[in-house]
Amino acid sequence: MAAVLTPMDDDGAANAGLLAEHCRRLIEAGCSGIVLLGTTGEANSFTLAERQALLEAVLEAGLAADAFIVGTGCCAIEDSAMLTRHALSLGVSRALMLPPFYYKGVSDAGVFAAYARVFERVNDERLRAYIYRIPQMTGVDVGIDLVEALHAAYPSIVAGIKDSSGKWEDTEALCRRLGSAIDVFVGNETLLVRALAAGAAGCVTATANVNARAIVELFLTRERGDAATLERSVAAARATFEAFGLIPALKASVAQTTGVRSWRNVRPPLLALTDAQERDLFKRLGATDSSPAFPAPIKR
Amino acid sequence: MAAVLTPMDDDGAANAGLLAEHCRRLIEAGCSGIVLLGTTGEANSFTLAERQALLEAVLEAGLAADAFIVGTGCCAIEDSAMLTRHALSLGVSRALMLPPFYYKGVSDAGVFAAYARVFERVNDERLRAYIYRIPQMTGVDVGIDLVEALHAAYPSIVAGIKDSSGKWEDTEALCRRLGSAIDVFVGNETLLVRALAAGAAGCVTATANVNARAIVELFLTRERGDAATLERSVAAARATFEAFGLIPALKASVAQTTGVRSWRNVRPPLLALTDAQERDLFKRLGATDSSPAFPAPIKR
Repeated sequence: MAAVLTPMDDDGAANAGLLAEHCRRLIEAGCSGIVLLGTTGEANSFTLAERQALLEAVLEAGLAADAFIVGTGCCAIEDSAMLTRHALSLGVSRALMLPPFYYKGVSDAGVFAAYARVFERVNDERLRAYIYRIPQMTGVDVGIDLVEALHAAYPSIVAGIKDSSGKWEDTEALCRRLGSAIDVFVGNETLLVRALAAGAAGCVTATANVNARAIVELFLTRERGDAATLERSVAAARATFEAFGLIPALKASVAQTTGVRSWRNVRPPLLALTDAQERDLFKRLGATDSSPAFPAPIKR
Repeated sequence: MAAVLTPMDDDGAANAGLLAEHCRRLIEAGCSGIVLLGTTGEANSFTLAERQALLEAVLEAGLAADAFIVGTGCCAIEDSAMLTRHALSLGVSRALMLPPFYYKGVSDAGVFAAYARVFERVNDERLRAYIYRIPQMTGVDVGIDLVEALHAAYPSIVAGIKDSSGKWEDTEALCRRLGSAIDVFVGNETLLVRALAAGAAGCVTATANVNARAIVELFLTRERGDAATLERSVAAARATFEAFGLIPALKASVAQTTGVRSWRNVRPPLLALTDAQERDLFKRLGATDSSPAFPAPIKR
């Protein structure tokens, strides 16, 4: 699945038309779905009204509601509940939920209570909640025991986790312990093959915005002898984007491939790459053994 | 200045009546002002509408607009701008502004751009912005160079900083370098006397909710020989509250002193103290040489 970028005009306004077009390309490139308004989508840099409008726009553009998981986790429980109810009202039942991420050093019981209160406020049995574990950003870990407790308390609601912790030992333990009960998505295609072997459902990744075809290919051919070569290639591409700042670098790359210059825009505190950084990025991408090309349809 | 707690009913709804009453007591106890909806006030656990309603309520209750600094910094620039404009429309010109706090590892230039965009969106020369430095929560430091650059670019707007970093060397450098240009508030009364000597304007502290009288006394008598004894006493009280979790422990203490049980309530991910923890807290407070009593008027 692709963690989709959110395009914006030069004045910072989200561009829903470009977003819908990009989502369609990602699906055509073989992604099995799209995570809208996650970390890669700069969700927390948008107002709640903007977030709702973006989801409405991609659905109005004809994309299928069941293709999406939408980010709805905020610091305030009522905000998370509101966004989640809004998604459900549009037929999007899968929500990716950050824990409240302002306070640090909070207890597992406190994080459990926050999720529980959101579920109760939403009060809709269609909800399929995906816990969003990304302690590098939130400073609040949602560890295996906590996920297990949430799933035990809300077995029909807690449908999965996106584990972007990046710590393979933790992720592996999570896959083994919970992979048969819920969907475990890793947040990084470099862990995809290992994670699938350990019980994961797949990966949700930012680099799919520019490299979907290769990542889908890796998923499909992972048991073949040459999968390791492809794995090294997607890892090299990812490392290059990460070196320049994942979100601005991916946006620069989409701008280049589409010829739509405004794709470079990000909202502060992120900054767009400078022209010099862009030239460097494209030079380095050209020099790797991977050539992350624009996602094109893959034959399955 | 007191970083005021936000009281809430058992269903989690903010109780504006209790808040206004408490603010009035804090002013009567000698606080020179009130920081509303900061970290202590659980600002980020409230929706934007709730935050606006709380500010309106305390002003409608007759408290002076110029007694307040109100927290308006959010992850999304448009949210920060909207809350700030709202405060200004009510005559509250002082806003305490967190940097966007979702992304980590962002550049100083990115944080600068975020503040700059808020100031430009607010576009009101009455604004007096106080930078909120609390990297323990935000994961985003706003260091001395960045504050200086912001003040240089927006000299009439950037009026101060609340430095809750808790690192004395940094705070001291900040006081010495910027103390004559802007109001430097430390976030902790245990640093108050040292900070004032280095050029700070004062402190904004959570413990003033229960210990305002002693802290004001420390401010007033800091050059007397017995100030060190009082300093140790307020520090001991603070350490006790911190050991139990500052916000829930302070709320438990206000609940006890006012007899209003609902004062104990917090919003997840924070949790109220258990009855056993409360008993422990009060036992330990009784055992310290400080007896943080309910703030009562102080003669000046």
